[in-house]
Amino acid sequence: MKLSMLHTPTLKEAPKDAEIPSHKLLVRGGYIRKEAAGIYTYLPLAVLVLKKIERIVCEELDRAGAQQVLLPTVQPSELWQESGRWEQYGPELLRFVDRKNTEFCYAPTAEELIVSMVRRDVQSYRQLPLNLYQVQTKFRDEIRPRAGLMRGREFIMKDGYSFDVDEDAASKTYDAMYDAYHRIFQRCGLDFRPVEADTGAIGGSRSHEFQVLADTGEDRIVSCDQCGYTANVEKAELRRSTANPERIAQGEAALERVETPGQKTIEDVATFLKVKKKKVLKSVLFESDKGLVMALIRGDHELNEVKLKAALKTTHLALKTDGDLDSEDGSLVPGYMGPVGLPADLPITIVADDSVRTMADFICGGNAKDVHYIGANWARDAVLMETHDLRVAGNRDACGRCNGTFRFFRGIEVGHVFFLGTKYSEPMRCMYLDQDGQEHPMVMGCYGIGITRIMAAAIEQNNDQYGIQWPVPLAPYEAAVIALNYDDPQIGAAADGVYTALRASGIETVLDDRDVRPGGKFNDADLIGFPYHIVIGSRGIQEGIAEVKCRKTGERSKISLETVADHVAGLVAAERRPSADETSV
Amino acid sequence: MKLSMLHTPTLKEAPKDAEIPSHKLLVRGGYIRKEAAGIYTYLPLAVLVLKKIERIVCEELDRAGAQQVLLPTVQPSELWQESGRWEQYGPELLRFVDRKNTEFCYAPTAEELIVSMVRRDVQSYRQLPLNLYQVQTKFRDEIRPRAGLMRGREFIMKDGYSFDVDEDAASKTYDAMYDAYHRIFQRCGLDFRPVEADTGAIGGSRSHEFQVLADTGEDRIVSCDQCGYTANVEKAELRRSTANPERIAQGEAALERVETPGQKTIEDVATFLKVKKKKVLKSVLFESDKGLVMALIRGDHELNEVKLKAALKTTHLALKTDGDLDSEDGSLVPGYMGPVGLPADLPITIVADDSVRTMADFICGGNAKDVHYIGANWARDAVLMETHDLRVAGNRDACGRCNGTFRFFRGIEVGHVFFLGTKYSEPMRCMYLDQDGQEHPMVMGCYGIGITRIMAAAIEQNNDQYGIQWPVPLAPYEAAVIALNYDDPQIGAAADGVYTALRASGIETVLDDRDVRPGGKFNDADLIGFPYHIVIGSRGIQEGIAEVKCRKTGERSKISLETVADHVAGLVAAERRPSADETSV
Repeated sequence: MKLSMLHTPTLKEAPKDAEIPSHKLLVRGGYIRKEAAGIYTYLPLAVLVLKKIERIVCEELDRAGAQQVLLPTVQPSELWQESGRWEQYGPELLRFVDRKNTEFCYAPTAEELIVSMVRRDVQSYRQLPLNLYQVQTKFRDEIRPRAGLMRGREFIMKDGYSFDVDEDAASKTYDAMYDAYHRIFQRCGLDFRPVEADTGAIGGSRSHEFQVLADTGEDRIVSCDQCGYTANVEKAELRRSTANPERIAQGEAALERVETPGQKTIEDVATFLKVKKKKVLKSVLFESDKGLVMALIRGDHELNEVKLKAALKTTHLALKTDGDLDSEDGSLVPGYMGPVGLPADLPITIVADDSVRTMADFICGGNAKDVHYIGANWARDAVLMETHDLRVAGNRDACGRCNGTFRFFRGIEVGHVFFLGTKYSEPMRCMYLDQDGQEHPMVMGCYGIGITRIMAAAIEQNNDQYGIQWPVPLAPYEAAVIALNYDDPQIGAAADGVYTALRASGIETVLDDRDVRPGGKFNDADLIGFPYHIVIGSRGIQEGIAEVKCRKTGERSKISLETVADHVAGLVAAERRPSADETSV
Repeated sequence: MKLSMLHTPTLKEAPKDAEIPSHKLLVRGGYIRKEAAGIYTYLPLAVLVLKKIERIVCEELDRAGAQQVLLPTVQPSELWQESGRWEQYGPELLRFVDRKNTEFCYAPTAEELIVSMVRRDVQSYRQLPLNLYQVQTKFRDEIRPRAGLMRGREFIMKDGYSFDVDEDAASKTYDAMYDAYHRIFQRCGLDFRPVEADTGAIGGSRSHEFQVLADTGEDRIVSCDQCGYTANVEKAELRRSTANPERIAQGEAALERVETPGQKTIEDVATFLKVKKKKVLKSVLFESDKGLVMALIRGDHELNEVKLKAALKTTHLALKTDGDLDSEDGSLVPGYMGPVGLPADLPITIVADDSVRTMADFICGGNAKDVHYIGANWARDAVLMETHDLRVAGNRDACGRCNGTFRFFRGIEVGHVFFLGTKYSEPMRCMYLDQDGQEHPMVMGCYGIGITRIMAAAIEQNNDQYGIQWPVPLAPYEAAVIALNYDDPQIGAAADGVYTALRASGIETVLDDRDVRPGGKFNDADLIGFPYHIVIGSRGIQEGIAEVKCRKTGERSKISLETVADHVAGLVAAERRPSADETSV
């Protein structure tokens, strides 16, 4: 494709509401345009990227035995009423009536419709397993659409649903989908992690999120450098040392009360007393259905309420904030609380994180305004009862599954595999008859991939101040021939030659033949993010060379005009991620 | 793909509301399922067909210089208000509000959105021409969805829009799109005709419909066997013989009044008087803004109101029916009208079709209840003024553009190219600056293809009492290996061998490995419509042969097991329609 013919209106300025790189660069690079809040048009370059993603997704799902279908976007309310989601789903479900006043919605997912379809056509165990997916536009009426394609309202999702005879069979399907997802994101050329995810309301079920790693990601995850165990920081299990629970550290300092006027946060106290935050004990007060709870944790750690609830065996927990502490004798002073010197008869449960066991000569609140203790130690100054894993996992924490160490990442969820069980098949009566004529509900799984979101996530992971750095498998074009002055017959001819040779080698190539100054051409190529740039100018022509630039590394090399097409074709081929089928041919 | 793994739930019975073959066969063959009126799910076989159609469409449009984009389905009302279509479009436009009460619609077409996009990003003649298209789900809230995919509510359409600097340039784009459409339907393997279409409200503009020929089509067209001129029967120009207008036939019979009690229609009168319908003159009464009009036409012809309006230079024309004839003297009797013996002072305009000139000794109404004239002749019995082309064209009519003869067809509109001019660009201010800095509205064209409709139209054209007869380019699989008893090790091995060999030759093949009786397998293969069936049974194995059946012709041949895969691969290859690009490789 010649750039002069390609509709890719690049912009100098990003839109004012754009905060993250993918949003800015997709608009600036001429990939997308906003039509309404959370609703975008995809321009030609974006369509090329989306088609590549879709192709990879479909190929790998087909290979894993799934079959592609296409379900309507406009779905009758009756089905949603049957599953109960018509009531449960809030205003994010876009609802409307047709000309005959029948209620419909624009589907954000399709569990109801697929179940209705399968129960109609599948009656026997002989017809199972069945694994169906679609790539279809979805709508979710987000209250605050933001971050460009990250949280849009209209988006393209691959959603898949599997039907099996029992949990074992469904588990195998789950594993097959997990593996397929692995291959999909690998073939996209992305750095990602499958992450054990919270199963929410459905206890005991399995669920993994596939997270693309990027500093701008909303999700925080840790991954073990040894066993690969990866989880959301709030779910990640930390190592419960066998030694630690026995050993309680003891220091040598004497307990002392010090004035800390106005120093209420851990940050404040550590700075004021010139110590590291890990020397300060953090005490956080909660109201629970079992009364007041004081949770203790090291100053540099983050308390994990999910784990705290589990430790307390409660589902109700509310943080007590400054205004509403209610100890009658005034011993609980916001910002100055601690386990030392608390009245023995104060009705409060104290619960501590494992890590506070190793704190000695520590600092904690003085249970009086503007006062802290220093040189505090367990046993001597306060009783330390049983401790728990109460922390949000962080970088360099100990893995709960092996002897490895966690590394911290931020991630963007691009895929989700979920073991549904009979959540939909039971209420919606999606049943089959087994060999003995006995009726059972089908056991389901569901599997989502955000097609448009992958495009944005790939950019979050691959960009610099100049623009996008596409991984080769997702790039709209793999190489760009930049003719510095295309109208010069020598340059034009050389550029045409390289362009033609690259295309003949099967490399998706653009030729920048525009009447634009060199700076503008370089900027656009960097912004749009073509993986390889071949620059052809008059100086190079005289030397018989072209300059090749790798967008990702910035490496530049001079290659003879005769061999440059072969050279770049080799570089591109090395970064392609063919499907296993293609490899084997 | 093994049929045992393919989700294609075939049915013995068609749904009760299905009237046309494509609707019946798509449901029975396990291609589609109805989810609500005019809203369908596409099962795996249908998705395979749709992907093939989409691929052909995209390849040919890309080759013609168009670029693929993707526009949102949910579009803000503001844009539609700008073009005026928010008011003009009736209840077929599905409208709704989002959670913030902002008005949107589910787009049935996208002129407004594309114009809004182009005017934002394109300002200069340097950025033109621009030709953008998308393949996207559309919604049209039909009052009476029917005929399966033919007139559904949610459907997939390719819609394209071109922007040019002036009418000449836009005309070239129109021609390029016309050619691309030609190639598209050719590559789909369909028998079709481009048909000159009515341009409706926009006078003087060009418009062609692409019609797939099928006896069940809603549209009636004629096509000249010599010059190829093809048009809707209502638009088709008939030959105005240079001789005929001069010559008025004269017969020899005497004028006579005969009793024709209760014989009001042409059919009735012809039967009653034992003559052909072409001997009876049909007289049809209209009310127009120029008073009463009596149109005369031969009894076997169909009056064309579009042409009649043009001949009368009027836009208002209403058929006068039995109840409301208003000649005061009672001379105009429903069912018994005619030009003979009308009172000279009756305020009525008589207008006649060219063909009545050659009528002699004809029959016409007696202008009295239960009476007709026989043996009527022009001049002697009634004055024949100027005549016109007032007929709906029919089979064997004379072509208006050459000496050829029309053939009549029924067709299904699957594509439409339309020269829009500045209908949208002027009111919506989609302007560009020319080389001299002068502002002009862009000149537009729009181009639609019904992707889901092509699937149905292909079936209307290619089916028999047993099922679908897919043209190879659209078939979900090109060949089916039917193992009569797959569990028999010899048959299983032979079938596997042929299946593997076909796939290795690049033939899209299914293997019927199901535990189903031979009759069921044959029925399903015929119903689903695989173009070639290779039957492998125990008798054939003993003879070392397989039976090959061509679904379209029904031809069967016995081919040795060793060569059958190559043989079928050759047959399939001969019916594929590669793109020009592929051919040249």
